[in-house]
Amino acid sequence: MPGEFERIRAIVAGLPPGERVIVGPGDDAAVLRPRAGFDLVVTTDAFVEGRHWWAGATPAAAIGARLAAANLSDVAAMAAEPRWALVSAGAPRDTDAAWMQAVEHAFASALAAEGACVVGGNLASSSGPAWWSITLLGEVERGRAWTRAGARAGDVLAVTGWPGRAAAFLACERAGAEPPPALRAAVHAPPSRVRAARALAAAGGVTAAVDVSDGFAGDLAHLAAASGVGADVESARWPADPLQAAAARALASHAGTSERSAGAIERGFRAAPGDDYELILAVDPARWDAIVDAANAAACPLHAIGRITGVRGECVAVAESGARTPLGGAGWDHFAGA
Amino acid sequence: MPGEFERIRAIVAGLPPGERVIVGPGDDAAVLRPRAGFDLVVTTDAFVEGRHWWAGATPAAAIGARLAAANLSDVAAMAAEPRWALVSAGAPRDTDAAWMQAVEHAFASALAAEGACVVGGNLASSSGPAWWSITLLGEVERGRAWTRAGARAGDVLAVTGWPGRAAAFLACERAGAEPPPALRAAVHAPPSRVRAARALAAAGGVTAAVDVSDGFAGDLAHLAAASGVGADVESARWPADPLQAAAARALASHAGTSERSAGAIERGFRAAPGDDYELILAVDPARWDAIVDAANAAACPLHAIGRITGVRGECVAVAESGARTPLGGAGWDHFAGA
Repeated sequence: MPGEFERIRAIVAGLPPGERVIVGPGDDAAVLRPRAGFDLVVTTDAFVEGRHWWAGATPAAAIGARLAAANLSDVAAMAAEPRWALVSAGAPRDTDAAWMQAVEHAFASALAAEGACVVGGNLASSSGPAWWSITLLGEVERGRAWTRAGARAGDVLAVTGWPGRAAAFLACERAGAEPPPALRAAVHAPPSRVRAARALAAAGGVTAAVDVSDGFAGDLAHLAAASGVGADVESARWPADPLQAAAARALASHAGTSERSAGAIERGFRAAPGDDYELILAVDPARWDAIVDAANAAACPLHAIGRITGVRGECVAVAESGARTPLGGAGWDHFAGA
Repeated sequence: MPGEFERIRAIVAGLPPGERVIVGPGDDAAVLRPRAGFDLVVTTDAFVEGRHWWAGATPAAAIGARLAAANLSDVAAMAAEPRWALVSAGAPRDTDAAWMQAVEHAFASALAAEGACVVGGNLASSSGPAWWSITLLGEVERGRAWTRAGARAGDVLAVTGWPGRAAAFLACERAGAEPPPALRAAVHAPPSRVRAARALAAAGGVTAAVDVSDGFAGDLAHLAAASGVGADVESARWPADPLQAAAARALASHAGTSERSAGAIERGFRAAPGDDYELILAVDPARWDAIVDAANAAACPLHAIGRITGVRGECVAVAESGARTPLGGAGWDHFAGA
């Protein structure tokens, strides 16, 4: 089996070179040259075997692509451009080197597609499940980072894509029901919202943003708490997703229940924990049309689903009948119930 | 047991605030403001239970202090000032929250003592051994980072402190011999060489640097390879360390062997793998006196132990008799023999 340094060399050799990397992998640290007039945006996200993927069940390419998405999504939620990544990994000594390289090439490729390169890393042996942790650095024009904290009552509440897909896929896998192939493809290689976020930031009008990494309801609650606001989500405006509908039908059929129950199953996906790597945005209504144009130009599906309200911390689903129900779902908590 | 977000809040609440942190922990990412005219230095190092520490045997404060040292040492080896850290951790759900906080406060304090603050992190549950990974960002005057690659034949070869202590401590623990208390203290809270490195960089004359994180012989070989040089280490100039000598005597006595064998045991520490977090430096001989003055002013023990040679890749121990022996020890390899 290859040793630590040989493994690192093999991984590094396949990586694309980076911009403004003065010293790349192979020294005590990497040296980078940030652009003048820009702030640095930094985030870290880890994937653990048995939590974020299952040995034998999740393809290496999907592990890598989703790990990259988890980090890219955080950078997108700050309106920043991804630049440089560091990778820290732990795995048992007998871990298949080709499999590790496949995961690492998958995340390096997904990062490279958005303009980021791997500039360093660390590999440790562990007696337990394998894990990868990425720290991603990005750049944003000075003082222009989005945060979770700027939403105001009256702002348009919007989401990119179709949150709930990750939960729908997981529900199928857990139940042993075959997920629709298009859903599998969408979940295994989540689209990046980096370019859309940059386009929206350039258009102006986004007052707050958060990425959907724990579940729509939980992440909206984070934005509301940080902004000191509430939100009304209009159920009728929730974007219809054929992939989630198909998953709900597959689950209902697998369970031998009626087509009618599929509707309830589908609605459950919105409230369930799930890492969709989509963005929840609060938008100044005066800028909404410009934001829609920017999203269209960036080929990013963007849906207005409600309004920010002044009722601090209260996130509510509003039915067509006008009935108001507290938005369920606390989001994913790694240590819940422990 | 506290949940993920509660745990994160508890950890963050105890942290000192940071300089030029525009958005701190609690958003999708942190936002930092790098100084104009500086390059960014970035490194990542992880500690894994059962590899870098042993449950019940290593105090939480030592785990945290050594993890901080591993990262600080990389930044020191680039002549940079540590600024901002991100923390990624994985642990079983039933992990004692107070123990995790003790580890995290220990590394946060050690980082704070050198001017760095924790600006973000991620906490994941895992079914396996606990791990922490830190990514540390530092700043160095543009174009002034030390690397492993600049050593030239004729340069003075120097080390800070007394490499071998980590190996000596580990040898005692493995053999079940009681390590000298002062050795335990030195290994459990390694001194930082950040301030010394900054002072030496200001003095000028360091041509290459590497930190001792795998073992003296292995890390010197990395520097030699990167610089395309060799090194003669004069055995007689190796700094005498009372703590390693005491450890060797304890081991010899524990094994019931003679005092004479203690000498051989002690010499073995230099070649053994070990993470001492000291610096190996190549220094322009014309600047040596100024470097010594700077080290003294920074209260950093610095020892000239030999010369850089033009014999590419050949690192040799030179005895007083003139006998030349290839420097043993390949350094620690997490995946060796796998």
